[in-house]
Amino acid sequence: MTAAYEPDNIFAKIIAGEIPSVKLYEDEDTLAFMDVMPQAPGHLLVIPKSRARNLLDADPAVLGKLIAVVQMLAKAAKTAFAADGVYVAQFNEPAAGQTVFHLHFHVVPRMDGVPLKPHAGGMADVEMLKEQAERIKAVL
Amino acid sequence: MTAAYEPDNIFAKIIAGEIPSVKLYEDEDTLAFMDVMPQAPGHLLVIPKSRARNLLDADPAVLGKLIAVVQMLAKAAKTAFAADGVYVAQFNEPAAGQTVFHLHFHVVPRMDGVPLKPHAGGMADVEMLKEQAERIKAVL
Repeated sequence: MTAAYEPDNIFAKIIAGEIPSVKLYEDEDTLAFMDVMPQAPGHLLVIPKSRARNLLDADPAVLGKLIAVVQMLAKAAKTAFAADGVYVAQFNEPAAGQTVFHLHFHVVPRMDGVPLKPHAGGMADVEMLKEQAERIKAVL
Repeated sequence: MTAAYEPDNIFAKIIAGEIPSVKLYEDEDTLAFMDVMPQAPGHLLVIPKSRARNLLDADPAVLGKLIAVVQMLAKAAKTAFAADGVYVAQFNEPAAGQTVFHLHFHVVPRMDGVPLKPHAGGMADVEMLKEQAERIKAVL
């Protein structure tokens, strides 16, 4: 059984424009923006605009659109940061590391030999995130 | 730039039926089977039958079909193992943890407070994997 969607989560507020985010990409169904607690430079999130708590209750049609945007941004982030690899992750429920209860995919550029910072660690400087976003958008 | 697909990888051999796997699900485009080096009980993999090194060179249409199967199996594995959550991950290139160079999604049931074992740790007992696969198939 999956818990219900809670409409007051922080990503719902970003979608509604009630709180700011450093946006990378937006279309009718999907939004991508920088993670404010990055595990590595270029760490971004891809979310659907429609309601889903996580993968377990998502509409498969929504997932199909979402994963195409994940791919597009994974390629762009890898190029923008000249990264050696890209980590893609999606957490369902707190036991799996989910901290915001609106479906999201993490896309994290990886460099050989550089470990990830912990998930949901410190807040990043917004100006730095904006610079990183410009680098990614430049290759989209 | 993405490295080329290497057709002699272990998942290509599983698709070709040249080496065995503990299968969970199969359709025209997709195959799912138990990870032989599980990070937790029920750890499974979902792969496309068509050639793709990873997310970076995959056909978006293939990805759409794949993520729907990932979702189906994430739900089934969560139910089968009465798990508290499910971790979904996809690694691109060695810097991100990729060890087999055929696109795959990891689906790992998570229990509250139980850490994951390391990726690509020890080989599991095949009879145990078969028992786990039966539990998952029973709720598909």
